[in-house]
Amino acid sequence: MARPLILISNDDGFDIPGIRFLASVCRQWGDVIVVAPDGPRSGAAMSVTFQTPLRLRLISQEPGLTVYACNGTPVDCIKLALSQICRRTPDLVLGGINHGDNSAVNVHYSGTMGIVMEGCMKGIPSVGFSHQSHSMDTDFEPMRVYINKVVKYVVGQGLPQGVCLNVNAPDVAQYLGMKVCRMGHGVWQNELERRNHPRGGEYYWMVGDFNTENIDAADSDYQVMRQGYVTVTPIKIDVTAYDMIDKLNSLND
Amino acid sequence: MARPLILISNDDGFDIPGIRFLASVCRQWGDVIVVAPDGPRSGAAMSVTFQTPLRLRLISQEPGLTVYACNGTPVDCIKLALSQICRRTPDLVLGGINHGDNSAVNVHYSGTMGIVMEGCMKGIPSVGFSHQSHSMDTDFEPMRVYINKVVKYVVGQGLPQGVCLNVNAPDVAQYLGMKVCRMGHGVWQNELERRNHPRGGEYYWMVGDFNTENIDAADSDYQVMRQGYVTVTPIKIDVTAYDMIDKLNSLND
Repeated sequence: MARPLILISNDDGFDIPGIRFLASVCRQWGDVIVVAPDGPRSGAAMSVTFQTPLRLRLISQEPGLTVYACNGTPVDCIKLALSQICRRTPDLVLGGINHGDNSAVNVHYSGTMGIVMEGCMKGIPSVGFSHQSHSMDTDFEPMRVYINKVVKYVVGQGLPQGVCLNVNAPDVAQYLGMKVCRMGHGVWQNELERRNHPRGGEYYWMVGDFNTENIDAADSDYQVMRQGYVTVTPIKIDVTAYDMIDKLNSLND
Repeated sequence: MARPLILISNDDGFDIPGIRFLASVCRQWGDVIVVAPDGPRSGAAMSVTFQTPLRLRLISQEPGLTVYACNGTPVDCIKLALSQICRRTPDLVLGGINHGDNSAVNVHYSGTMGIVMEGCMKGIPSVGFSHQSHSMDTDFEPMRVYINKVVKYVVGQGLPQGVCLNVNAPDVAQYLGMKVCRMGHGVWQNELERRNHPRGGEYYWMVGDFNTENIDAADSDYQVMRQGYVTVTPIKIDVTAYDMIDKLNSLND
């Protein structure tokens, strides 16, 4: 049997500590191809690029590890990798390790989870890894055992069609363990900071505080991560609110 | 009681026929504020802008209709509108009318549905309207009765927390009616077209064919829209695959 082929991308850029660590851990599991943005794309969600020509640049190539940079979004990277670079369909698509967690509703804004959902929509078992710390000096070493555990599970068992995984590690010295959770809920507040340009005119920076008070449940990924656990949230592509189909009955005609 | 306040955005640009038509239809329902991108943002999904300063430009102001353009993404527009422009929380957030449908899994790539999911995540009843035709000459007039029907329903009944609506109209001369559906499934193929630059070097354009063969069900929004119906798909923010939480049991430790 051929060695597994593992496609990795992120939304922080191809040369960032998080993705380097993930690629290094995964080399024991198979041949690794990294196709990742040439710079930061945080908050890229599942965006794709239609207006700008896309380009690929080979960064490095050694046995078992090939790295490309791309001028597009994380999802562009996966589409380009699958159609232009990978000689066969990868066995796994991985996103991350993201610098900053993607728990709770932030799955919807996350470029890391955009990668994972794109892999999933192409029928490939896909997992996103994120770490609560935004620091470039984050020690990812404690995540190794959990990455290995999840990759071993997914390589062995696969995942059902239309389901992918969102793994988030807390910013604590020692993890309490790993827990499978549901997605958390919360609301972003104070999201825009207004500034005045030195030559006149106002502009805004996107910032924000994530508020879960009275909204989130104690067993959500966000809350469990904050307790010190590495969380695993199973995410599905089908976003239909099935219980609403009958309730909206009066709209049928 | 105050007139309803309706916030409208799109991903095609503030001055495009689809959003102009939607705004004109909605003026009978309340005061309309348009905050939309200053140019095309198709495929923007739920992306947000962290790297670039955001700016707002007042385009026009008359009783009951105010229009702003923004240099950001569709979701940026909603965040800016809610925090910087609207004096009170809008009663409705609407996306569209998009030139091109957003049925099936395309909800995940759609800037129009990004708007709607952002509105929904802020606790506001939110609906996206899309038309199958990409033409700038599309006759939106047949959609009027269906827009009115959906807006009347949502203004009257509201929507449950965490649920929004995705409305798609087919490109046919006469609609067969309206049907509430589930989200369709399909796979994008042949997504990248390679070209050679006149000065050397390859680049790619994002294109693609949407294939639903052996994947989609006859009662999905995509298939029902293609039969000639205007479809309404209830979409939920919580993407947890709940039935997987127990199955992933062996990952707990």
